[in-house]
Amino acid sequence: MKDTTPKNDRVEIIEVGLRDGLQNEALFIATETKLQIIDMLIAAGVKRMQVTSFVHPKRVPQMSDAEAVCANLPRGEGIEYSGLVLNSKGLERAKAAGLAVVDMSISASDRHSRKNANRSLAEARVEFGSMVRQARDYGMKIRGGIQCAFGCGEEGPVEMETVVDIAKNHVASGVDELAIADSAGVANPAQVSQLIAEVRSFAGDIPIILHLHDTRGLGLANVLAALNSGVRHFDTAFGALGGCPFISGASGNIGTEDTLFMLEGMGYVTGIERAKVAECSLLLERLLGRSLPGKMYRPELDNMKA
Amino acid sequence: MKDTTPKNDRVEIIEVGLRDGLQNEALFIATETKLQIIDMLIAAGVKRMQVTSFVHPKRVPQMSDAEAVCANLPRGEGIEYSGLVLNSKGLERAKAAGLAVVDMSISASDRHSRKNANRSLAEARVEFGSMVRQARDYGMKIRGGIQCAFGCGEEGPVEMETVVDIAKNHVASGVDELAIADSAGVANPAQVSQLIAEVRSFAGDIPIILHLHDTRGLGLANVLAALNSGVRHFDTAFGALGGCPFISGASGNIGTEDTLFMLEGMGYVTGIERAKVAECSLLLERLLGRSLPGKMYRPELDNMKA
Repeated sequence: MKDTTPKNDRVEIIEVGLRDGLQNEALFIATETKLQIIDMLIAAGVKRMQVTSFVHPKRVPQMSDAEAVCANLPRGEGIEYSGLVLNSKGLERAKAAGLAVVDMSISASDRHSRKNANRSLAEARVEFGSMVRQARDYGMKIRGGIQCAFGCGEEGPVEMETVVDIAKNHVASGVDELAIADSAGVANPAQVSQLIAEVRSFAGDIPIILHLHDTRGLGLANVLAALNSGVRHFDTAFGALGGCPFISGASGNIGTEDTLFMLEGMGYVTGIERAKVAECSLLLERLLGRSLPGKMYRPELDNMKA
Repeated sequence: MKDTTPKNDRVEIIEVGLRDGLQNEALFIATETKLQIIDMLIAAGVKRMQVTSFVHPKRVPQMSDAEAVCANLPRGEGIEYSGLVLNSKGLERAKAAGLAVVDMSISASDRHSRKNANRSLAEARVEFGSMVRQARDYGMKIRGGIQCAFGCGEEGPVEMETVVDIAKNHVASGVDELAIADSAGVANPAQVSQLIAEVRSFAGDIPIILHLHDTRGLGLANVLAALNSGVRHFDTAFGALGGCPFISGASGNIGTEDTLFMLEGMGYVTGIERAKVAECSLLLERLLGRSLPGKMYRPELDNMKA
C-alpha cells in the first residue's frame, strides 16, 4: 500500500466533555469525580481541556463547582486548562481561580445571544472588546469564539458575512486562537470549507479551532472537510456527551473517541490513547445509567484495527 | 456568498432499506407494508431500490416473501428494482420473479464469505464468473459487488490488493456497475479515497456505487471522501436501518435522510424529497416500537434550512 500519512499530520484535540459535555446533564457529577476524569484524561495523553465555565450556578448547576475544580487541578507538565466565561464577572472568577487560559465567545445569532448571554449581538461585540483587554491585563491566553457560526436552531441560517466580520474583530482585538462553533449542529462540509477558507485568508498564523456538534449526524464529515481545509484543532467530548441547554435539539459534541478513530485511521497523530479516553466515557455511562451518543468508546466496536 | 454548487452535482441514491435495512429485523414486516413503503419511496422521488434478496427463507425470514414482493411491484416509469442473490439458484429465482437488475457480490474476506455465503473466497470467485454469464443470458443488468472491501469484523483488515483484484475481475467479467461495500462499517475517509482512486483507474466508465455502514460513526465522512473522489452513487437506507446479521456489531446503513441532508446542503441534486422518505422511517419506527439509528428522519431536527 502507498503511504497515505498526511504531511501536516499533527492534530490537537481539546477535550470539552467536562464543560460542554456535562453542562446539560441534570445529574450533578461530584467534583471529585470530575477531578478523577481529569486525571484519567491526562493519563490518556490529553494536553488541553476545557474544565468548567464561570456562569451563574443557578443557570448551570453542573458548573457550580468551578472554583473547587480549578483549586484542585493536577499540575501536569504541558497541560493547558481553560474555562468558559460569558462576561466580565466570569472572567474575574476565572482569573481568581488561577486559570491561565480563557474561552470567551460571541454568538453570531442575535436571538441565541439574547437567550444564552442575555444581550444583543451588538452589545456582546462591545463587551467582547473590553473583555479581551481585561484578559490581556490578567496575562491570560485568550480563545476567541464564535457560536452559531453556521446557523442557529432558533433563528435559522446565519450570514457568513456576519461570522467573518466577528472573526475579523476577534483577530483585530488580539485573541490568541479563533474558535468557530457549530453550536446547533447544522453545518455541512461545504459551509465548513467555505468559512474556513474565508477566515484563514485574514487570520494569519492564529490557530483556528473547530467546535462541532453531531446533532444532525454530520459531525465527522465536517471534521474531514476542516482537515482538508487545513484545520488542525478540534474540540471534542468523550463519549460524544453534551449540547447547549439553550438551543433546542442541539445535543452532542462530536465524540473524542470517534474523532480519534477517524484521525488514527487516516494517519494523523494526536498523542492520545483512545482506549484510555473511553474509560472516562464508560465511567460516565455507569454514573448516568444510560448509553452515551458516542460509538467508539464501546469496546465491542473496537474489535479490529482496520 | 460564493456559488458553491458542485459542477457534477447529480447524485444517485439507491434505497436499500427494504433489503439491507430490514433483513436484520426479527419482526416480520408484512408484504403489503413493504409494498406500501415502495409506493411511498416512489412518491418521494426514489428511482432505484433494492427491494429484496433471494436467499434461503430459513436464513433470512424477513426476505421469505421475495417472490410476493416482486409480483406486486408498481410499474412506475424509470423505476429500477433490484434484488440481491448469493448463488445461481437465487439468480434463477430473481429472473423468474421478473427483476431486470440483479445485485451479486463477493466478499473480500475469506472468513466472511464462508459465514455469509458458505464458500471460500476462491470458490466464490469461480462461481461469480458463471453467475455473470447466467445473468447475461437472462438479459439482466448486473451490479457486481465487493463486500467487506475495507475489512471485516471477523477477520480484521483486508488487503487493498485483494479488493482491487476482485474489482478487476468484476470489470473483466462484464458487470454493469461496481458496488464497493464497507459491510462492517470500518472504513475511514483515507481508505475510501485511496480505494476509489485505484478502482477508478481501471474501471473505465462503469459507475462505482459505494455501500456504507455507519457502525463506527464514519458513514457520512466516508460519503464526503467518496464525493471528493468523484463517486456519485450511494446505497442508503431510510432511517439508517440495517446491518448484516452475519457480522457482529455491523448495524446500520447510512441513513437516506441523513445523506440527503448533507447532499442538499452541499448543493447536490438527487431528485428526492427528504421529508417524504422520512415518512417511511416514521412508519417503521411505529411498527418496530423503537427509535431508528438515523437522525434527519426526525421532524424536530428539521426545524431549519441552514
